Amino acid sequence: MIGALVFDVFGTVVDWRSSVIEEGRTLGARHGWNVDWGAFADAWRAGYPAAMDRVRRGELPWMNIDALHRLILDGLLAEHALPLPADEAEDFNRVWHRLRPWPDSVGGLHRLRARWPVATLSNGNVSLLMGMARHAGLPWDCIFSAELFGHYKPDPEAYLGAARLLALPPPQVLMVAAHPSDLRAAAACGLKTAYIPRPLERGPGGPMEPWTPGEFDWVADDFHALARALGA
Amino acid sequence: MIGALVFDVFGTVVDWRSSVIEEGRTLGARHGWNVDWGAFADAWRAGYPAAMDRVRRGELPWMNIDALHRLILDGLLAEHALPLPADEAEDFNRVWHRLRPWPDSVGGLHRLRARWPVATLSNGNVSLLMGMARHAGLPWDCIFSAELFGHYKPDPEAYLGAARLLALPPPQVLMVAAHPSDLRAAAACGLKTAYIPRPLERGPGGPMEPWTPGEFDWVADDFHALARALGA
Repeated sequence: MIGALVFDVFGTVVDWRSSVIEEGRTLGARHGWNVDWGAFADAWRAGYPAAMDRVRRGELPWMNIDALHRLILDGLLAEHALPLPADEAEDFNRVWHRLRPWPDSVGGLHRLRARWPVATLSNGNVSLLMGMARHAGLPWDCIFSAELFGHYKPDPEAYLGAARLLALPPPQVLMVAAHPSDLRAAAACGLKTAYIPRPLERGPGGPMEPWTPGEFDWVADDFHALARALGA
Repeated sequence: MIGALVFDVFGTVVDWRSSVIEEGRTLGARHGWNVDWGAFADAWRAGYPAAMDRVRRGELPWMNIDALHRLILDGLLAEHALPLPADEAEDFNRVWHRLRPWPDSVGGLHRLRARWPVATLSNGNVSLLMGMARHAGLPWDCIFSAELFGHYKPDPEAYLGAARLLALPPPQVLMVAAHPSDLRAAAACGLKTAYIPRPLERGPGGPMEPWTPGEFDWVADDFHALARALGA
């Protein structure tokens, strides 16, 4: 008895790493910089849970992901001694609004949406998720964001807040994510879980979180396979 | 310089009165009731600002529109001595999730959306607005609801909350509504305003709120005319 599907976005729906690398290469070529953009993308992304945790612990005031991404970007630019004018840094920071979907994401979401409401449940801020959806053609019925709840995942307020706004009991909400830790936090709030491994999220041969077969309600290779597994 | 459009929904995008009348007639025919469904629809709708105001004044705890609609419906059913089983009352209450768009709404929203993000800004709860959008094919980029802000329009928190989530200064947000009072509250928060008169909202010859030419930034007969006026 599923009433709605909610999706993690970065890594699950969109391929942040190759999108950041591509825009970084274009930027670097324009400025004549010699940068390992794969490592740069990984460091940018790696700074984000740490920054969110500082918000979650109360060391930083509530800041949305645009602001956290910019904080990390400014640190990385300084560390690499890359002098980027503020307007260009602001534009580069918005690469996170322009991330490319995985090849199955748009078609798979349309297929799932024909049967159930589909919504984001992301730590990205609302305007970022909305801009990304318009850019990438992601057919969300609704955008749920940590920003609405004042709590980042994996805080329970985010998962329970989405169920409340959907007017569904948590066991009727299916959380879809490429990250076992996200799914475990959702399951602890009573949501159903679907694990979609994205082995290329951190590049070919990149690390993936460990998980145990049987710990999630569904496991599927991509969104089309999830639709088939759910009978849609 | 418009960055996004936000829309009042009941009366502005959807024709609540004829939708409620039609479902009421079907229900009444099944039960053999003799009811003036136009008057019933008007009374149901008329109970809603009063109930919201009780929430706004703190006389009632926060209740979403589904709950407020049900409270008013139960009162009307008792007043008319119409014995409706609870499951049928619950289903009839959900007529507000199944309201029909005005003839120009879907096409006009698609046209506006090609240029700007379009979102609801309604006192309806999120799940109601999402269900209505799926039912009617309303192509919202995002659903903003009083429920997200814990404040019903015309409280300023609702208008300013939408601008904040859009990451836009209020003057770059255009509020579109069929109700001058809603637009005046939006303008008081700094938003731009577009008035779309819906002379049939309360039925042929029904009352409309007075307004003064020149008090809104745009006035247009429907969403297509609004798109033309905005240059989209």
